[in-house]
Amino acid sequence: MKVKLTERDKKTLKRLVELADSVTQSAARGRDPFVDVPARSLSNVRYNKAKRFIEMGRATNRRQLFNLSQARSFMQTMLVASGAVQLIEQGKTTSIRGLYYLLKHTIEGTKEETFDEQSECDTIIEDVEVLLAALREELHLYADKRGEMVGDIVIIDKGDEIDCSRMGSGGYGIPSIVEPEVVEFKKCSAKFVLHVEKGTVWQRFNEDKFWKKHNCILTHGAGQPPRGVRRMLYRLHNELKLPVFCLLDNDPWGYYIYSVIKQGSINLAFESQRMAIPDAKFLGLRSKDFKECALSESVTIALNDTDRKRARQIANYPWFANKKQWQKEIKQLLDNGFKLEVEALISKDISYVTEYYAPQRLKDKDWLD
Amino acid sequence: MKVKLTERDKKTLKRLVELADSVTQSAARGRDPFVDVPARSLSNVRYNKAKRFIEMGRATNRRQLFNLSQARSFMQTMLVASGAVQLIEQGKTTSIRGLYYLLKHTIEGTKEETFDEQSECDTIIEDVEVLLAALREELHLYADKRGEMVGDIVIIDKGDEIDCSRMGSGGYGIPSIVEPEVVEFKKCSAKFVLHVEKGTVWQRFNEDKFWKKHNCILTHGAGQPPRGVRRMLYRLHNELKLPVFCLLDNDPWGYYIYSVIKQGSINLAFESQRMAIPDAKFLGLRSKDFKECALSESVTIALNDTDRKRARQIANYPWFANKKQWQKEIKQLLDNGFKLEVEALISKDISYVTEYYAPQRLKDKDWLD
Repeated sequence: MKVKLTERDKKTLKRLVELADSVTQSAARGRDPFVDVPARSLSNVRYNKAKRFIEMGRATNRRQLFNLSQARSFMQTMLVASGAVQLIEQGKTTSIRGLYYLLKHTIEGTKEETFDEQSECDTIIEDVEVLLAALREELHLYADKRGEMVGDIVIIDKGDEIDCSRMGSGGYGIPSIVEPEVVEFKKCSAKFVLHVEKGTVWQRFNEDKFWKKHNCILTHGAGQPPRGVRRMLYRLHNELKLPVFCLLDNDPWGYYIYSVIKQGSINLAFESQRMAIPDAKFLGLRSKDFKECALSESVTIALNDTDRKRARQIANYPWFANKKQWQKEIKQLLDNGFKLEVEALISKDISYVTEYYAPQRLKDKDWLD
Repeated sequence: MKVKLTERDKKTLKRLVELADSVTQSAARGRDPFVDVPARSLSNVRYNKAKRFIEMGRATNRRQLFNLSQARSFMQTMLVASGAVQLIEQGKTTSIRGLYYLLKHTIEGTKEETFDEQSECDTIIEDVEVLLAALREELHLYADKRGEMVGDIVIIDKGDEIDCSRMGSGGYGIPSIVEPEVVEFKKCSAKFVLHVEKGTVWQRFNEDKFWKKHNCILTHGAGQPPRGVRRMLYRLHNELKLPVFCLLDNDPWGYYIYSVIKQGSINLAFESQRMAIPDAKFLGLRSKDFKECALSESVTIALNDTDRKRARQIANYPWFANKKQWQKEIKQLLDNGFKLEVEALISKDISYVTEYYAPQRLKDKDWLD
């Protein structure tokens, strides 16, 4: 069965072939085969103030076949690349766990396994991503699938037309891979995106038809949003010019989720340019909300040591360090001594968050940047 | 704003009012108010061989207001019931965490909190469920939302028509509450349901359009399926007469997931009658598959002590204890000394599971019951 490759597939495949060629050419010339893998260490990550997201520096690490300490990871790098070729040529995708199983075997004539654990394979996948400057999705690998979407948008997903304003209580499960070859935007009359942290909060907003009343798209990522959701938000923001507002818990984890959506993840800095949304806004919850919403002590949760440590770390992130409002926000969290979940607003009224809190903040443009 | 109550809401509300009446009547007569809560202990759970699912016995525990050790839980029971009334009357639903926040407050004139932790509230919710013989969903409470569905079925979800055969790569996110008032089945030409354990496996089946080729509905529950998914499977099975096949990992956890789908959960035995599917089949993976599919040692995962202990427990479940095939299956798992994930089949071919394994087993009627 002949598979039709997309333009993007052809480009990725070309890079994979070049990688293989460089190895065989070295061998043919009697030289040691190697690859130079961009360093994914923290020291090679920096915040680009102009672009306003995290990016990788230029440091690389050489990985050689004829080096006892590198031979194994060199072999694994080639294996992962060959797995990607296989997937692309077959027109199939798989999970990172799937790739691990696809590539795992005992090397002939030895008792050596190609990979002992999935974590070993996952690290190499990230190496190959940076090596080829290709997103995981372009290698036909997908991460966990979580998160849902409703709102005034019609999309085409693998040829099927999906009207996200007609999804009932269920919602459209955001795929792991939302690249333009898979997901096209057909029609959109929404004016912004409201991204909430959890499915339960999303259900409140969906049940109250917030997205209909306020003409928006409503998404959630079931906690830290997976790559598919982040890519979806990025595309909605950049292609459809929709502002993105985040409604997250008032705790260091909520700040961190916002930070990843806005600036990218420190561990995977190379993907920031196609994931980060520097203009995303933090709508809440905020440390001032305990007083402003007249919440009761009953709904507060005391900060623990980890929370305090994380809050201080986040306050030092370069993109928060120079922002007065963020310094004030985090200081007030520490002064409060407690955190607040979005659900705490239920103590006011079941629909306080959808009928009062979010509309008021949007109207007053009262958010953090 | 006047909310239109469904017939089911009226029934639930009536029971809630009766509960309140019984308390006020006791008080009016100068008697100690009490409620008799059906016992949710293991000793009050039994396997009904005729109905083929787990059910509760008739033991109850009396909970009195004027009893120092019971006053707090009596108060909490009334609070949860009043919360349910509030939700039903407003026509709204919330998560169990949401209800906790709704009800949590400092009791006037004291330093006592109505609930200290969510777990306290969750327990009382289960008490109220058995007390009123009402599913959580009827109290307008929802559990976690996970799991997705595609296939040849058109449903109406809160008035929106959703064609699950036109969901692209994304799928329809199964709601937490799939009662007939919310989700109606409009048209279905599928002949059976294939339920897989994980989202990643579901994606493989969806990408390969298995449900189209084999005319079925494809669901997953992201691990142990949440109540919404179990109720959906139950309704597909009972209302549309679709056989349900489960494709789970070959390990004690996979067996347990099957057991819960089939017979109900031991902790929540009272819901079995509206959740359990005694005719559900276990399609795989099976302990014989290592040999039958000629898998390599590389893809096996050694059993640990917990696995072995769990496997022996499950072998003793009354619905497995008398089944030769299940005894053989579990014995062989223990003899093998390893478990197998569905993804292990990828080592044969990316689409081995969708193109060979599942079709062959269905064709041969080679499953466990």
